[in-house]
Amino acid sequence: MSKAVANVNSQVQVVLDELQRKSISNIFFIACGGSSAIMYPAKYVLDREATKLVSDLYSSNEFIHRNPRQLGEESLVILCSMSGTTPETVEAAKFAKGKGAYTVALTNEPESPLAKNSARFLKYEWGNDVNAFDTNLGVLYQLVFGVLHVVENNEKFVRLVTSLENLQAVYEKALQQEAENAKVFAASHAKEPVIYTMASGANYGVAYSFSICILMEMQWIHSHAIHAGEYFHGPFEIIDEKVPFIVLLGLDETRALEERALSFSKRYGKKLTILDAKEYDLAGIDEEVKGYIAPLILNRVLRKYAEELAEARNHPLSTRRYMWKVEY
Amino acid sequence: MSKAVANVNSQVQVVLDELQRKSISNIFFIACGGSSAIMYPAKYVLDREATKLVSDLYSSNEFIHRNPRQLGEESLVILCSMSGTTPETVEAAKFAKGKGAYTVALTNEPESPLAKNSARFLKYEWGNDVNAFDTNLGVLYQLVFGVLHVVENNEKFVRLVTSLENLQAVYEKALQQEAENAKVFAASHAKEPVIYTMASGANYGVAYSFSICILMEMQWIHSHAIHAGEYFHGPFEIIDEKVPFIVLLGLDETRALEERALSFSKRYGKKLTILDAKEYDLAGIDEEVKGYIAPLILNRVLRKYAEELAEARNHPLSTRRYMWKVEY
Repeated sequence: MSKAVANVNSQVQVVLDELQRKSISNIFFIACGGSSAIMYPAKYVLDREATKLVSDLYSSNEFIHRNPRQLGEESLVILCSMSGTTPETVEAAKFAKGKGAYTVALTNEPESPLAKNSARFLKYEWGNDVNAFDTNLGVLYQLVFGVLHVVENNEKFVRLVTSLENLQAVYEKALQQEAENAKVFAASHAKEPVIYTMASGANYGVAYSFSICILMEMQWIHSHAIHAGEYFHGPFEIIDEKVPFIVLLGLDETRALEERALSFSKRYGKKLTILDAKEYDLAGIDEEVKGYIAPLILNRVLRKYAEELAEARNHPLSTRRYMWKVEY
Repeated sequence: MSKAVANVNSQVQVVLDELQRKSISNIFFIACGGSSAIMYPAKYVLDREATKLVSDLYSSNEFIHRNPRQLGEESLVILCSMSGTTPETVEAAKFAKGKGAYTVALTNEPESPLAKNSARFLKYEWGNDVNAFDTNLGVLYQLVFGVLHVVENNEKFVRLVTSLENLQAVYEKALQQEAENAKVFAASHAKEPVIYTMASGANYGVAYSFSICILMEMQWIHSHAIHAGEYFHGPFEIIDEKVPFIVLLGLDETRALEERALSFSKRYGKKLTILDAKEYDLAGIDEEVKGYIAPLILNRVLRKYAEELAEARNHPLSTRRYMWKVEY
């Protein structure tokens, strides 16, 4: 591996060095909720790029009980929990280790049970002021493209890392560009009882995260992330002039699905909020990885939409009635 | 292969015979909407049983555009469309064939474009009067367990086929047992604007199908199939005494997830509808495959719930405003 490609998080580099001495044939992406959602684009990357590595993505407790037969000594298990205390994910790390897998955990807390129960951990940063390179999505991509480079000699690693280095500036411009739109969305949706999200490909996880974490969990608004390809095989019958949809348009190979779903929605729906990655200034993002980077930008912009919605509804994003408050 | 295991659909047998001469390393389950949902349990089976075969499941158009790099001459692509005319699925069959994959389509229409554009087709029967053995789910399981038998010498094939032969009687008893419950559900939920479904493991696809095909498509009721393991990482904040949930309890290894989700829901929710496969008489279903068969039973029983709901709401299951009526 040339020096030029080594400009990643130093903990990621340790993992990549260790991988040189291992034989890995499959990867499992294991986490819960929002931490699971960040892994959907990584699965998309592997499907598109990997010539031999196979991958699956499961919610932590499903993973343990499903107990995939091919989990073993040739497995790399990538886990994530911000606090590093998510019980199911800590259990999943122990479970995978017991099967002989190589476990790598992403967490904000180096002293957490998840970090301690994984072969390696990668610390990521959290919050609105953190550089894109150091977030959960940024660190995960460094790892995933690094693995593809080490195991399969995939050449996109350098392009990806350079693009991640330039991503923060893209975020800032996109956020400025969307500032007013986010306020308009918040004001017009403050009283909606149901808000759907829709996307496909690398972007579906972003829609999923917004639906289950922001809308259902943090705002108690009914929601569902509809896959733009599945839309025409059931869900589209729900849309009419009163039903709000947030439609994401990314830059990956499935964009045609999102465009088609949007086009139909425009004919029969009235309450559409469209986030289109094509509208953003992507200076510094390599053409070859734009489709993979788009979900990160959409995700960052949607966080602003979430904050404005919470403000307009006077329902802070930190409000919970059950999570961390009652037994479950 | 012994004669004892050959008691499958004769078209399935032809495919299994052909597979003896092929080298298959991965399987793609490709369909849209309800036809895709029937494949979720099959993916669960492969994850649990396959020692070498890997598998993925994608909505047809996502599959084409995602263009998985490992799709090729060692791929078995299993597709499904009742009418055999679903444009994305027909395209997916052509696309997979172009990549050198072996394509097998399930359809009710032997003369359909899907049947004609696949290497082999398997005709299945459709409707309430059809034997469980001959339905889409029944034929798909004959194929999947058959593939596991031929390619990996998996021993559950005979048990599964025998269980499928005995399944219709199980359906009939379960339907009788649930007849009154289905009416109660329908009457009490006729005016609900939102109904969630929840399940995990082999049963998640059944919840997904009920949400997107029955509730959203056929009844225009807001819905979302929540994964029972993800529930505690976001979605559970939505439940209160006014929000209805249909909770499925299967018999597979993930039942603990469904039980935990139900237990929490009972504490904070009031409008719970519980379908528990443990309550049914499973005479004739082999112990070793009960977990795999449970989603088929839950699916059949839920069809009755759907019919009663449609009746109570005076909104026939055949009602559409867009599907097959407008351009999309």
